[in-house]
Amino acid sequence: MVTIALAQLKGVLFNKNLNVHRILATIQTCKEKNVDYVLFPELFLTGFFIQHEIEALAEPVDGESIRIIQEKVKETGVGTILGFAERYENRYYNSAVFIEKDGSIKGVYRKIHLFDKEKEFFTPGEEFPVFHTEVGNIALMMTFDVEFPEMSRIYAMHGVELIMVLNAHNVPYQPHQGIFLQARALENQVFMAATNKVGLEGSTLFFGESAVISPEGHFIEKGGNNEEIIIASIQLSDVYKVREEQLMKYLENRKGELYSKHGLV
Amino acid sequence: MVTIALAQLKGVLFNKNLNVHRILATIQTCKEKNVDYVLFPELFLTGFFIQHEIEALAEPVDGESIRIIQEKVKETGVGTILGFAERYENRYYNSAVFIEKDGSIKGVYRKIHLFDKEKEFFTPGEEFPVFHTEVGNIALMMTFDVEFPEMSRIYAMHGVELIMVLNAHNVPYQPHQGIFLQARALENQVFMAATNKVGLEGSTLFFGESAVISPEGHFIEKGGNNEEIIIASIQLSDVYKVREEQLMKYLENRKGELYSKHGLV
Repeated sequence: MVTIALAQLKGVLFNKNLNVHRILATIQTCKEKNVDYVLFPELFLTGFFIQHEIEALAEPVDGESIRIIQEKVKETGVGTILGFAERYENRYYNSAVFIEKDGSIKGVYRKIHLFDKEKEFFTPGEEFPVFHTEVGNIALMMTFDVEFPEMSRIYAMHGVELIMVLNAHNVPYQPHQGIFLQARALENQVFMAATNKVGLEGSTLFFGESAVISPEGHFIEKGGNNEEIIIASIQLSDVYKVREEQLMKYLENRKGELYSKHGLV
Repeated sequence: MVTIALAQLKGVLFNKNLNVHRILATIQTCKEKNVDYVLFPELFLTGFFIQHEIEALAEPVDGESIRIIQEKVKETGVGTILGFAERYENRYYNSAVFIEKDGSIKGVYRKIHLFDKEKEFFTPGEEFPVFHTEVGNIALMMTFDVEFPEMSRIYAMHGVELIMVLNAHNVPYQPHQGIFLQARALENQVFMAATNKVGLEGSTLFFGESAVISPEGHFIEKGGNNEEIIIASIQLSDVYKVREEQLMKYLENRKGELYSKHGLV
């Protein structure tokens, strides 16, 4: 079993110090609740609409904020997945760092499908990293990524059992979040766990409704529209039980050659 | 505008005569309601579980039953999409015929993703035909097909504006039908129209809940669990309005090369 926490929090725009403080406190809370991994929303370290402040706020994965958080992770043993603006090779990425329970950096995911104006500030990622942990295979994505079925499919084909989603989804897209999370879980027979932001940033209202969804498409947990920490214990190997027991063997029944022949990619 | 009817009917297993009679009566009803196209469920002509009777019940697309139906279509001007067991080049396919309003055969769709035991009786199709009509571009699929996001994506990339789905979906898969129809409509910004069977065949209970869904993922119409003819008028060019107005330009934002590089097909 792995116990995951979805840190459905607000965060303060442009204020990394306050957000780091909140992250450390949340990790402490998670330790008290025996959480293995805690997942924060997209760009939680800085707030979402950082735009022209990106140069001042972005940091490399070995930057100061993440080093402070690594220390707390090492102390508590609560693995942490955090959205931040990354400076890497003189470019900026909308990234998520995966900090293992021992405080080491397991890797970084750089958002592949940038939404609308995000393209003005960020470079799109090009990798689909899979994080092999002692509890199973985990991969990351963010908000708009979930709306492209190709991406979850690639992860499932690469052995991913749990897709963690760092969201920054605003009103009125609640149906999009719910439908797509369920569809991705169902069609790939994987667990989905998504943490969304809550509250206002400027005139944008983030709606929460963070969720953990089973490989059969059921909501195991679903948050409301305000701050909360949602905790769920799941068994990642259930993915194989579902694939074994159910007649809809999606990965086996794909027609890759046919899709290719008819121009899917 | 195009007015479509979903013929959410029961049908009688093994009895083509009775089913043809029902189809003709339904087409007549549709004419009185100014329907342009009527969509019947998967394998409606023969019933679903024909299995070892397939040799006796299958017919070629120019077989007797379909010729009778073509006459009725020609007389009424109600285009008809019908699921039937097809004999073609000494093989059997789980097919759907698209009969144009003038009674001509516009084409045949042969089910690509066969489910479980269907593989024992049918050969899988390998084509993704698009039917160009005077009201827009229409394509067909059946039940299990919808659960593979690749297929709807290929259709959308080929200019399809409305995907018609011939379903034979049974209890307890109501959530699958609803979630996948909404997801396919949303992620491709196309109309989905699905007719499901109702009632018992042996111990299998087909649940209806046929639906027409907008390119924004909204249910325009949704049926109950008993026989009914559901009628909806839609404007297929709304697909382009949605793609123009909304910020989530899914087809433009796909990363085909990246998907290919990472092994999608």
